[in-house]
Amino acid sequence: MIGFRPEIQALGGYTPGEQPQAGKFIKLNTNESPYPPSPRVIRAVQQAAESGLSRYPDPMGNAFRYRAAEVLGVEPDWILCGNGSDDILTIVTRAFVGNGQLLRLPYPSYVLYKTLAQIQGAWSEEISWNEDWTLSAAFYADSPQLRLVFLPNPNSPSGTLVSHQAIGDLASRLTCPLLVDEAYADFATSNCLDLVRQNERIFVSRTFSKSYALAGLRFGFLVGQPHAIAKLAKVKDSYNCDALSIAGATAAIDDQAWLRDNVAKIIATRQRLMAGLDALGFASVPSHANFIWTRHPKRPSAALYDQLKQNRVLVRYMNYSKWGDGLRISVGTDEQIDACLALLQSMV
Amino acid sequence: MIGFRPEIQALGGYTPGEQPQAGKFIKLNTNESPYPPSPRVIRAVQQAAESGLSRYPDPMGNAFRYRAAEVLGVEPDWILCGNGSDDILTIVTRAFVGNGQLLRLPYPSYVLYKTLAQIQGAWSEEISWNEDWTLSAAFYADSPQLRLVFLPNPNSPSGTLVSHQAIGDLASRLTCPLLVDEAYADFATSNCLDLVRQNERIFVSRTFSKSYALAGLRFGFLVGQPHAIAKLAKVKDSYNCDALSIAGATAAIDDQAWLRDNVAKIIATRQRLMAGLDALGFASVPSHANFIWTRHPKRPSAALYDQLKQNRVLVRYMNYSKWGDGLRISVGTDEQIDACLALLQSMV
Repeated sequence: MIGFRPEIQALGGYTPGEQPQAGKFIKLNTNESPYPPSPRVIRAVQQAAESGLSRYPDPMGNAFRYRAAEVLGVEPDWILCGNGSDDILTIVTRAFVGNGQLLRLPYPSYVLYKTLAQIQGAWSEEISWNEDWTLSAAFYADSPQLRLVFLPNPNSPSGTLVSHQAIGDLASRLTCPLLVDEAYADFATSNCLDLVRQNERIFVSRTFSKSYALAGLRFGFLVGQPHAIAKLAKVKDSYNCDALSIAGATAAIDDQAWLRDNVAKIIATRQRLMAGLDALGFASVPSHANFIWTRHPKRPSAALYDQLKQNRVLVRYMNYSKWGDGLRISVGTDEQIDACLALLQSMV
Repeated sequence: MIGFRPEIQALGGYTPGEQPQAGKFIKLNTNESPYPPSPRVIRAVQQAAESGLSRYPDPMGNAFRYRAAEVLGVEPDWILCGNGSDDILTIVTRAFVGNGQLLRLPYPSYVLYKTLAQIQGAWSEEISWNEDWTLSAAFYADSPQLRLVFLPNPNSPSGTLVSHQAIGDLASRLTCPLLVDEAYADFATSNCLDLVRQNERIFVSRTFSKSYALAGLRFGFLVGQPHAIAKLAKVKDSYNCDALSIAGATAAIDDQAWLRDNVAKIIATRQRLMAGLDALGFASVPSHANFIWTRHPKRPSAALYDQLKQNRVLVRYMNYSKWGDGLRISVGTDEQIDACLALLQSMV
């Protein structure tokens, strides 16, 4: 056997949600947007394709940084562009967490954090949420081996939000960097962007895969203080973002009206889904994201998942050891959600 | 100061070639193609942009793998798609080289290899080429700490080619994986694809940035034996290639006639550049790539670089400690090369 590192040999690897490449499914399993991206994005990508792909792209994606800085109220050098926010999470892990060191994440949350630690030959410490999905006291404890804390906010699969104040408090008790993964923040009532100014150890990551309906484009970014962004830029691949995604993401963040409209529609449909699940006797967690975590007190979640799939509705079934299982249902269009609810009604 | 790993604090970081974002330059410094990509690529990208970016892309880029497999004469599961070949080099380094272990590269060659080792907390061993750019005996020596060998072939900045037989011999003497970086192989008279079948420790990487004129797209791939490709896939970001680049690269590899035409033009112009430099008294290395490494016995390379830049011709000046400096001139169009040669004539 050729010489893979033992950590890599042992790697389970992250299994992304099913992406059926053929067949008609109502796809409510990977928190994509049911709406198309802004038409300006399509035009920008098509123009970029015509105006020349033979040159290397701008290594720092400055066109995006300048436009995003205006929208977010920071300076361009507070922003690092990534090939999806997964690229950002990878860069941050490689920069802060060495072999044998420790990374912290809440449990249940995004499995990738743990995989990234494992690839680094680092340890990860999964700290269970309190039963009501608030941070447990142990999550605030500092330790000398601790080098990075990941906090998805809103969290997946729960869709719950840790308060702005709790996150400021958490960062002030930790001596290591804290990355607040705000993949779903556009659907929530608050975010932590302003905390980045107050504490150099706080970083915020964002993605274009959810609220901007651009999962296929692979674009995300990090907000942090400029001296840290400059160092992180040395860890990334030189040309980590291509010319098309830089053009597309720049057009996307420029169209805030489109974003607001779609977020408003998704939040309205989230209410409709929540009410529908309530009416069917499901126990659901109130969500700040574009999905709802739910289970039925009498019907096993795995069976519901299977029956939905047989009827060509894909949701995500998750089973967390020592925590329990459930269904994570992405918020689609009203029509998609009504179809899903009608099927569930026939099953419970 | 926040907690960057010491290896990251010490990191110089790779400095990519200048990419002037404004102004008219004849750009002969980063080995891009002077020709546009196949028109089929533009159409494929534009169609992919229209047909929907809201869904996640295929994690493995199977459309590309199936088409590339036919062109290359391997099976699809021998191919791993990357966000540029830099992504491939990063994945391979993370998979094979642990903290404190050793990575080997020839010197001078691609600086990124060394940076990747440094980010891993690994050591790198740069072994100088023989003066005639053949592999030195030390490059063949196995050692227990050695976990990965990078061999760019053709090499940059020299454009020289290590023979197929020498590479087979090298791999059989090493017990660790050997990655043959074939970024420039389409311009050369031989390549090592067939060696991958003969030895599971041999991997070949390719890029679309050079011969396919798609540096802006970020797409590269690795060829290796399926069991190794499957493991490497666990190390990559789940969705490392976006929907647009998968569509574009698939169209590009499908248009082999376009590739052959452009490679033929570039090789013809390379001859013209070589002859022109000879006539001006430069000492140049015969090249198997889309660039020529050259220096003038009487004029300092740094001064020539500066004067060319003042006249809006960008070439790459490189100064390798204990080896020497020189100019690496990318092969442009005939007109670009004639303009560059005319300027050089006025300087020497």
